[in-house]
Amino acid sequence: MSGIAERLRAALGADAVRTEPDVLARHTRDTWVLSELRDLEGAAFAAPAAVVEPADAAQVSAALRTCREARVPVVPYGGGSGVCGGVLTPEGAVVLSTRRMDGLVSLEDRDLLATFRAGTNGLAAERRVQQAGLTIGHWPQSIELSTVGGWVATRAAGQFSTAYGNVEDVLFSLEAVLPDGTLVRTRGTPRASAGPDLRQLFLGSEGTLGVVTEVTFSLRPQPEVSRGQALHFESLGAGLEAIRRLMRDGWRPPVVRLYDEHESKRSFGEHCPEGRSLLLLLHEGPAPVVEAQIAGVTRIGDALSAGGAPAAAVDQWLEHRNRVPGFRGFLERGIVLDTIEVGATWSRVGALYRGVVASLREVEDILTATAHSSHSYRSGTNLYFTFAARPKEPARMAEIYRECWRRTMEATLAAGGGVAHHHGIGRVRKDALAGEIGAGGLALLRAVKRALDPDGLLNPGVLLPDA
Amino acid sequence: MSGIAERLRAALGADAVRTEPDVLARHTRDTWVLSELRDLEGAAFAAPAAVVEPADAAQVSAALRTCREARVPVVPYGGGSGVCGGVLTPEGAVVLSTRRMDGLVSLEDRDLLATFRAGTNGLAAERRVQQAGLTIGHWPQSIELSTVGGWVATRAAGQFSTAYGNVEDVLFSLEAVLPDGTLVRTRGTPRASAGPDLRQLFLGSEGTLGVVTEVTFSLRPQPEVSRGQALHFESLGAGLEAIRRLMRDGWRPPVVRLYDEHESKRSFGEHCPEGRSLLLLLHEGPAPVVEAQIAGVTRIGDALSAGGAPAAAVDQWLEHRNRVPGFRGFLERGIVLDTIEVGATWSRVGALYRGVVASLREVEDILTATAHSSHSYRSGTNLYFTFAARPKEPARMAEIYRECWRRTMEATLAAGGGVAHHHGIGRVRKDALAGEIGAGGLALLRAVKRALDPDGLLNPGVLLPDA
Repeated sequence: MSGIAERLRAALGADAVRTEPDVLARHTRDTWVLSELRDLEGAAFAAPAAVVEPADAAQVSAALRTCREARVPVVPYGGGSGVCGGVLTPEGAVVLSTRRMDGLVSLEDRDLLATFRAGTNGLAAERRVQQAGLTIGHWPQSIELSTVGGWVATRAAGQFSTAYGNVEDVLFSLEAVLPDGTLVRTRGTPRASAGPDLRQLFLGSEGTLGVVTEVTFSLRPQPEVSRGQALHFESLGAGLEAIRRLMRDGWRPPVVRLYDEHESKRSFGEHCPEGRSLLLLLHEGPAPVVEAQIAGVTRIGDALSAGGAPAAAVDQWLEHRNRVPGFRGFLERGIVLDTIEVGATWSRVGALYRGVVASLREVEDILTATAHSSHSYRSGTNLYFTFAARPKEPARMAEIYRECWRRTMEATLAAGGGVAHHHGIGRVRKDALAGEIGAGGLALLRAVKRALDPDGLLNPGVLLPDA
Repeated sequence: MSGIAERLRAALGADAVRTEPDVLARHTRDTWVLSELRDLEGAAFAAPAAVVEPADAAQVSAALRTCREARVPVVPYGGGSGVCGGVLTPEGAVVLSTRRMDGLVSLEDRDLLATFRAGTNGLAAERRVQQAGLTIGHWPQSIELSTVGGWVATRAAGQFSTAYGNVEDVLFSLEAVLPDGTLVRTRGTPRASAGPDLRQLFLGSEGTLGVVTEVTFSLRPQPEVSRGQALHFESLGAGLEAIRRLMRDGWRPPVVRLYDEHESKRSFGEHCPEGRSLLLLLHEGPAPVVEAQIAGVTRIGDALSAGGAPAAAVDQWLEHRNRVPGFRGFLERGIVLDTIEVGATWSRVGALYRGVVASLREVEDILTATAHSSHSYRSGTNLYFTFAARPKEPARMAEIYRECWRRTMEATLAAGGGVAHHHGIGRVRKDALAGEIGAGGLALLRAVKRALDPDGLLNPGVLLPDA
């Protein structure tokens, strides 16, 4: 494989291929806790043979063809902000960074469409359309770090999803390059019944089925009115019932976040009485609709004996929502911590919460196991668990981390939940995928993978469990 | 192939396999105009070797495995109500009818979920959930004839789509059998980032990638309030501008239908001044939201000099919406007639309308070429064309029919539109598919097809253009 950098230089030009040691070192991994831990422990990461930075889809195609001929694995790389081990470059592989495919391609106000190159930073993209009075409406917590192509590849969710949908709902069309170098551009109309929706093969593919090179979003105007509302409930269960009812009634606040009593105390102790579960809502839209929606939610809260909390709690969340203390700082203090988001229907989510929390509390040296709900649907919601443990033997951090994950996946599946709401599968969840889509689903996904990438060169080791 | 009926009887039991001539004759085709015409002309249709009627997914699997071993083509068959030639059984093929897979499997009010066997009639399914005060919210014009499995396989749209979405938006999960007999059940959670969304491979597959055996919908309660509104505009273009603005403002009436001046006169002459373009809206939801929405739409209409039309026009549409005179009656009177639905972004839809109408008007013996818009989105809408011609030489009906289709597809693509909004591809559009998804999209779709059905046995001749 030693000649792959030279072959790529020949195919793409010297400026598209990087082999400086510091560049290689920056493309070995994402921010998965196990990678952070390994790094902290001073372990070495396998070095890529090269980082290729194509300027456009034609160069992506050339890079993929070159690597395929040489049978060298390729790891697509966007912002590097994944948290599931979706990037952990195998020795001698080529990292394909979308960094140089940056910026706006077109903005059509009349059609509410904006096309960005895949490597465009998420917040830069949102700010660009905001200059035109519009919004993508997609706010993943990683927005300052992630790329629009990464949003598609990981099937991301945004904090405003309950009204505006997740990335699959704001995505209008895309351009991608298949493992054999074929360029695909999906339909340019709002809706079609012209065979399977090809966008969906790339949404959530995590770089295993192709490289997304361009992304077109269907935008919205910025809302006329935006108003916060906060309520507290006697339990997480009562709060979940309130969300179920408001979704059923057809209300769609973009933000609907319910914290269990532990997280309510930890993050909003100033605004929420101890032992209560805090519900934050942000309403957006035309003034009379927002007014009706607040009244509708208030009635539901009253029926469930909710207490009113100050809307300042919503402002506090809005202000701090993307400032999350990194895993690294905790690891340095001997604490292993992670978040795990799962999903379930309304009838299963209560038991899922209890099952996961009970199982995590049995883990040795566990400090905390809590959750909130942050993305709701007519038929169910997600739970976003946070666990933290401080192993008495620091050498056991990775082991205890894996045990927390294993227990959460098992308890989720036992309760009939889905193992991944929006962070993706990566490496950390790949053994749980069969529990989500079954042996048949796995066989289907493997058949598609084999058809497009027979040698298994695109991001090997990710998404699909080892055979 | 003569032994396939016996082999199927051995595998599934005698009661699952029909070979009576009248049963075979009823499963040769759908209601595609060219098939109707052929039938009227007394031409014979190729006879299937057998009609297999599996009772459940396990029997579907057995049937597909049996046919695969014998290398006999299989044509999945739901209600037979398709209009694009998606069913035109090759000589000696097996028709797999979902007829015996009928009825409700489960209804979970708390989760707003209803699961039906794939062969359940659409209206029966809707009525069943209405008994519980709920609605699927999916109203294709074919609802009295089509099956819920057919809705998925053809990627159907419903008349209330502008608020409630198309079939892909109300579909929660599904069960399907792959060509090799593998059973797939998609995730049971409202949303996941766990690889590509496997439902999407079956939505729009038109029986080429597998057989849908069970469908679960995410339901809604029936609306609190339902109110009609009608406006008329100086032109189709002015009406389209009104729809664009109301979609942009975030209003979502379930029904938004705009007729060009010809269709306004033809269907609503009593309610709409001659030469004007009629817009029908049905608003549904909580009373204050419906009120705000009507006011919002009225303001947009005022700004575009709309006139008010009686809401009785909406009632008239609601009453007659599924009563469409069949193609057959026209053919018997020497008139060849069809409808063609396409889609486009707002900036392209006006030119698309003009281009298609102008091109159709050049066709020999054309009587009429008109359109309405019936499904709108933030970034565009559909157009539903109707054409009719009365060839002086009746023997040329098929030729003139094909010319009208060719011209509509070409003018749609020339205007940057999409060739199929919701009737599917079938046989009538398969040569236009490359214009919709490009050579790359076609290569991708062919690769998936080859991976799942290497011998091309599932519904051959449909969706993909001949190689």
